[in-house]
Amino acid sequence: MDFFFYPSSVAIFGSFRKGAIAYEIAKNVVDGGFDGKIVLVNPKGGKVEINEKSFEIKSKLNESVDVAIIAIPARFVPQLIDEIGDKIKGAVVISAGFSEIGNEELEKELLKKAREKNVRIIGPNCAGIFGVYANFYGSFEVKVNKGGLALISQSGAFGGAALAMGNEEGIGFSAFVSYGNASDLTESDFLMYFADDENTKVIALYIEGVKDGRKFIEALRYATSKKPVIILKAGKSKKGSEAAQSHTGSLAGSYEIYRAAFKQFNAIEVEEMEELFDAAKTFEMYQKAGKRIAIITNSGGPGVLATDKAEHLGLEIAKLSEETIKKLKEFLPPQCSTKNPIDLIADADYERYKRTIEVVCEDENVDSILVICVPPIFLPSEEIAKAIIDAKCKKPIIVNFMAGELVKEGVELLAEKGIKNFSTPERAVKALYWLSLRKAF
Amino acid sequence: MDFFFYPSSVAIFGSFRKGAIAYEIAKNVVDGGFDGKIVLVNPKGGKVEINEKSFEIKSKLNESVDVAIIAIPARFVPQLIDEIGDKIKGAVVISAGFSEIGNEELEKELLKKAREKNVRIIGPNCAGIFGVYANFYGSFEVKVNKGGLALISQSGAFGGAALAMGNEEGIGFSAFVSYGNASDLTESDFLMYFADDENTKVIALYIEGVKDGRKFIEALRYATSKKPVIILKAGKSKKGSEAAQSHTGSLAGSYEIYRAAFKQFNAIEVEEMEELFDAAKTFEMYQKAGKRIAIITNSGGPGVLATDKAEHLGLEIAKLSEETIKKLKEFLPPQCSTKNPIDLIADADYERYKRTIEVVCEDENVDSILVICVPPIFLPSEEIAKAIIDAKCKKPIIVNFMAGELVKEGVELLAEKGIKNFSTPERAVKALYWLSLRKAF
Repeated sequence: MDFFFYPSSVAIFGSFRKGAIAYEIAKNVVDGGFDGKIVLVNPKGGKVEINEKSFEIKSKLNESVDVAIIAIPARFVPQLIDEIGDKIKGAVVISAGFSEIGNEELEKELLKKAREKNVRIIGPNCAGIFGVYANFYGSFEVKVNKGGLALISQSGAFGGAALAMGNEEGIGFSAFVSYGNASDLTESDFLMYFADDENTKVIALYIEGVKDGRKFIEALRYATSKKPVIILKAGKSKKGSEAAQSHTGSLAGSYEIYRAAFKQFNAIEVEEMEELFDAAKTFEMYQKAGKRIAIITNSGGPGVLATDKAEHLGLEIAKLSEETIKKLKEFLPPQCSTKNPIDLIADADYERYKRTIEVVCEDENVDSILVICVPPIFLPSEEIAKAIIDAKCKKPIIVNFMAGELVKEGVELLAEKGIKNFSTPERAVKALYWLSLRKAF
Repeated sequence: MDFFFYPSSVAIFGSFRKGAIAYEIAKNVVDGGFDGKIVLVNPKGGKVEINEKSFEIKSKLNESVDVAIIAIPARFVPQLIDEIGDKIKGAVVISAGFSEIGNEELEKELLKKAREKNVRIIGPNCAGIFGVYANFYGSFEVKVNKGGLALISQSGAFGGAALAMGNEEGIGFSAFVSYGNASDLTESDFLMYFADDENTKVIALYIEGVKDGRKFIEALRYATSKKPVIILKAGKSKKGSEAAQSHTGSLAGSYEIYRAAFKQFNAIEVEEMEELFDAAKTFEMYQKAGKRIAIITNSGGPGVLATDKAEHLGLEIAKLSEETIKKLKEFLPPQCSTKNPIDLIADADYERYKRTIEVVCEDENVDSILVICVPPIFLPSEEIAKAIIDAKCKKPIIVNFMAGELVKEGVELLAEKGIKNFSTPERAVKALYWLSLRKAF
């Protein structure tokens, strides 16, 4: 499937007036810096200006390209595939109006033509694809930052919103695919593909239902053996399942069966959209960790909240060794708590944070570390960010800097070093929890 | 306690060099636009410039004021209270170094002097107070927007972070109190006070433990009978409870007892810091609602996620009346789903949203409405925001506009009208859930 996500040439079919879907996709492809061949096709021909560059619109596709992106009325799509099938390897069919509105026949015809011409299909009724490392933004959705997450979404609108929100959460993407009606390629194919994609560190999947359960199980088994797979399963409840059926036409099936499969293969199942982002952030940074956590904080309250959440999730508040406690007592003021959670109190500075992280990191009873920082009173938050960056520690460190604007500089400095911030103690603890799920596998 | 939260005069004790606590508090009081008398006191006298205004620093307090804010070394505080006790009604003692570090005697002495002089004490070891409607920002914490939330926090740092994060979440505040060691006035006193404060629509409480359980129960009973009370209880788990004890010195006590009390009096217990904000946002807008919800969306996926969450929380997906469905079918395109969740599909515009909200609002089977909007493809998000604002409907409407930057204009327009946005379907559904808890009372 490299021709989809690392194409060297693309043809886009549709209307190229401003605001039209094909125009918006072409704009994304051009603006995104795709440096392969770009062919725009519309029977009417003409010209279009995109990003101060003039493009001739061809009336037909006269050359071979890796991938076609098709945003023309549904009824013409099978015929187009027949026409251009010999010149393309794959087609992304954005057009809606197939099985999702009861037009099963048209979808069957599309698939038949594709099979005849040996063309693989993504869609129809989808929002398109991104191959971020090829600078290929083959969708009208918002462009994203390069990173490690491949997002596979059955719902186009969910995918689009997740891309935009993921950007703001500081997530980096390797790829995006909205696969719509899954007439040919399905979530299972993409799972298999991204499992072996070298730029993808973590896969996130939004599904309502799958067409072929057996194939999905196999794909899940394979992908989870290669890298973390995060799943947000929609349509879990009775009414939710009914709504899913009217949305993507997929029989959601018994959630219990899905759940058992997720658990068996150690997929990270999340319950909410926000958790999907948080889990993606986590696994962009780390692969796994044990469940004995240490909490280092400059404020008692958030430390207590983190402790509650950790115990609730079945994590262990690590029992620090005698030696660690002794070492901490050597440099920490007497008002500090050297018991886990370790409270460095309000005037904690660079040195106090850095040394504490290093001492705790050396403790064999500690698998991972949560560093909490409320706005320090007498120094800028960058100082604490620097301490985290400079501390010599190979164990996973998850960071919770509160609160927003007041710690903005510190959070930005961390981000530059690839350390993503979690905005509340509880969200940070969940990150450690997910790491422990992978470890337990 | 009006003299604390609506004072007409204040004296501040401490160091007035830049960066010192007393200076920062004085700066907040001046910048905040407090128009009562402000007296700065330090034995060394001198002058200080705050916000381009010159203040003389008095060596002693020679006049009567409502409230003193004290940020001098702990050991001098009881003596100061003795000295100025006849001139003040209440004192906010910021100074740390009392019972929280084992200095029980000093705290007892402080309390004794206060009792002798009939002075009420907030603190010691606290972050101060805000009386927002008096423009009185008697704390070094970040200033906030006027609104309906009174935030009572046992932890100063938690309170400070919550103020800053609450600002960014669009929450408006009526008051803030960090009560520290609770030597005199406790969470129970503040609960009672804000229950009757006319500017407070909702009370949020962060507690680790309480000193007097019986008094707390009575205060909770009273406050919850008057308005919604949101509680984030820290120290619920075994290790969390131990951490709380070393933090605020409070015996957290059995969580089960707290939990039973919260439930009995219909307090809104939240599990995470983020939920505290979301619940506060909810109750700034609405008092309560039944549990039969309608979901209106322009994207199937988020509608399914909302439905799952709603069923999980025990809400009911309202069964729309025959008449409602008939009315909807009159103007909705055939691809739309007129079954709850109602899917208006991607090209939904102002008119489609507005009419749907109005029709659904009239249905007797519907108690509250969730309106979901992913970035509309062919029009700006403000159009959907306007539809929500213009729709004639008296039932609670909770809004989930996704995603961030892409719907910023719509979210801002809603905010201008006092409609607060929830950033994911699940967070929005929780808002409806909390409203139903109050209704069930």
